[in-house]
Amino acid sequence: MRCDPCVKLRDSLDFAESFNIRIQMPNSIPDNSVGLVKPQLMHFEQPLSLACGRTLEDYQLVYETYGELNKDRSNAVLICHALSSHHHAAGYHEHEDKPGWWEVCIGPGKPIDTNRFFVVCPNNLGGCHGSTGPSSINPDTGQSWGADFPPLRVRDWVNAQAKLSDKLGIYQWAAVIGGSLGGMQAMRWALEYPDRLRNCVVIASAMKLTAQNIAFNEIARSAIRSDPEFHEGNYLAHNTIPKLGLTLARMIGHVTYLSDDLMGRKFGRQLRSGDFEQGSYNPVEFQVESYLRYQGDKFSEFFDANSYILITRILDYFDLAREYDNNPVNAFSQALCDFLVVSFTTDWRFAPERSREITDALIDAGKNVCYAEVDAPEGHDAFLLPIPRYLELFHTYMQRIADEVNS
Amino acid sequence: MRCDPCVKLRDSLDFAESFNIRIQMPNSIPDNSVGLVKPQLMHFEQPLSLACGRTLEDYQLVYETYGELNKDRSNAVLICHALSSHHHAAGYHEHEDKPGWWEVCIGPGKPIDTNRFFVVCPNNLGGCHGSTGPSSINPDTGQSWGADFPPLRVRDWVNAQAKLSDKLGIYQWAAVIGGSLGGMQAMRWALEYPDRLRNCVVIASAMKLTAQNIAFNEIARSAIRSDPEFHEGNYLAHNTIPKLGLTLARMIGHVTYLSDDLMGRKFGRQLRSGDFEQGSYNPVEFQVESYLRYQGDKFSEFFDANSYILITRILDYFDLAREYDNNPVNAFSQALCDFLVVSFTTDWRFAPERSREITDALIDAGKNVCYAEVDAPEGHDAFLLPIPRYLELFHTYMQRIADEVNS
Repeated sequence: MRCDPCVKLRDSLDFAESFNIRIQMPNSIPDNSVGLVKPQLMHFEQPLSLACGRTLEDYQLVYETYGELNKDRSNAVLICHALSSHHHAAGYHEHEDKPGWWEVCIGPGKPIDTNRFFVVCPNNLGGCHGSTGPSSINPDTGQSWGADFPPLRVRDWVNAQAKLSDKLGIYQWAAVIGGSLGGMQAMRWALEYPDRLRNCVVIASAMKLTAQNIAFNEIARSAIRSDPEFHEGNYLAHNTIPKLGLTLARMIGHVTYLSDDLMGRKFGRQLRSGDFEQGSYNPVEFQVESYLRYQGDKFSEFFDANSYILITRILDYFDLAREYDNNPVNAFSQALCDFLVVSFTTDWRFAPERSREITDALIDAGKNVCYAEVDAPEGHDAFLLPIPRYLELFHTYMQRIADEVNS
Repeated sequence: MRCDPCVKLRDSLDFAESFNIRIQMPNSIPDNSVGLVKPQLMHFEQPLSLACGRTLEDYQLVYETYGELNKDRSNAVLICHALSSHHHAAGYHEHEDKPGWWEVCIGPGKPIDTNRFFVVCPNNLGGCHGSTGPSSINPDTGQSWGADFPPLRVRDWVNAQAKLSDKLGIYQWAAVIGGSLGGMQAMRWALEYPDRLRNCVVIASAMKLTAQNIAFNEIARSAIRSDPEFHEGNYLAHNTIPKLGLTLARMIGHVTYLSDDLMGRKFGRQLRSGDFEQGSYNPVEFQVESYLRYQGDKFSEFFDANSYILITRILDYFDLAREYDNNPVNAFSQALCDFLVVSFTTDWRFAPERSREITDALIDAGKNVCYAEVDAPEGHDAFLLPIPRYLELFHTYMQRIADEVNS
């Protein structure tokens, strides 16, 4: 099963849908959407040196753009996606009824205002939505890379994104923006290419994962590896996929992206079937059980298992300050841009404390930083949702940037 | 693979060991241990009516006792175990080098002082350590029950424990005590057999699980069911066990019993192998990954998968006040005993808020209740660990009971 950039893949939006957020049909695209969009492909024939020591000789990135680049090329914004997302961040694909995963934040009049910014969102290397990854063909073998795809780091993604910037003729981004794993990329940009961004927006992220976070990722990977259809990562050669393992992996991830509070409000102890009458046995299924199974099952139909393993390892391995004497202040001293840091109160996977650590290090490094801790019950996934206070502060920050670059 | 009561099965103690708690060898059994103990068996030929409407015609419970029953049979204490525990709560089995799972709390001079109390700890029905459960022989078929074992509720356990009490000649317990799922049993005792206990000790427990808790249990069950060796629960008939699924289930459970804080202190981002040097690729394994895999793997060697599914369902289905108009105050109004309720600050699986709900309902029902929220970084597993403040308050409460019953 090969992945195609046009395959239906909007788990974040399915999440939004499950929370009763209104989904528009293409025949009634709202005015505040970027409208119909098409993914674009960029081929790179110059080899990319990777942090692991290996080289990707030839690769491609799929990406989307929204809005118009201004004359002095100063209004471009780069969106870095998280673990299970991709290049389709906003607008609609033809014949599809759901918009991109960050439709609430990207569009005319929205925080990332496409009337003012030129927005670029690539699918990262190692993904499974059209950019070169484990399910792509390895030119040396003529077979899918599978488990042989080189291990990547956040810095490899950032380097590939910089090559894309070069090809697009964008030297300096008005902002590099990301939530969760996307925030890690934004921070890495600030350190590795300090003169190539004016602002860095880091939402619901961390300078490195905690042991608990690594543990959840490892359990998810173990679930995939335990599936007999995994074949040590060479499942495509066996014409199969480790569907059950990937389903479990997603269920584990999904429950940690929600807060206990939100799950209580949304599902509580509601039953989908069965009852607790004494003396009559009707097997009980809780709503939350069937919801999780549905989410996991759906995810397993479009996400590549090797990509999931590879990307969760990228998350685990990320440590912003590793090459800066393990000192975040030293690390951020490299940066030249301004920062917006946002966290959500009930996010226990990337807790507000992690964002406060980022903010403290930025302040100690003498950087301009705005920090907002948004009171929201939605857990980690809050960064994908239309929370008024969050959208408002994000909008305010971005408007200031737009005023600067368009003036 | 059949389970035997004498098999080595002390995951809680392995946990303790991993936290550098001193483990004594039998040839140097410390003075404050109950010493060598032997499991005992009790057969029941009177059928047990179950909440599901089915009947267990014939069953057995394995149990251990520590200390001596006094003349008026008033100093007996019942220990109710949690999800993965069993009857071997204290002392040593011959030729084994680890004590029972609650050795820190049970013994001469300890909170449950065996110089003053007669302590009884049965393995619950549905378990896999010697009491009748899914891996026992179904007399109707001559084969293991497997997935056909009747679904149980906490009230079934409590009813079976009451039958054991009758056979032991103990009408009233000085205290019924349990942590986690054990606390649910203790509370059910207080409601179903109000005149048969003088005290109810509820540690790190809840009146019902949250949606998040149910979600984690369901993911664990899905992991077991996804294992092709599960054979819909009839794996023993296929001479196999769903080892990989059970390993995953335990890994999921285990990580939720620890706090983020404790995992950070214990493992942080320490590596077991590999390095992050750029340009040289040595695959990285974090300590926390190998620890979890080891714990899961070890657990899968002695725990029965059907028991795991059955017992996690018992946890999910428990709702103390369901039959009392969903009103905890109505429920606790049935009780005649006094209560001690204990929680631990970093326990996010059975959070202090759940214990405060119990305490509030008890107060509103006019009951005598002591509530202690113990500041401890160890998460849910804190109730198994030698935390001085916890042991001290537990000891104080139990000494008062001992003074009353022995006077």
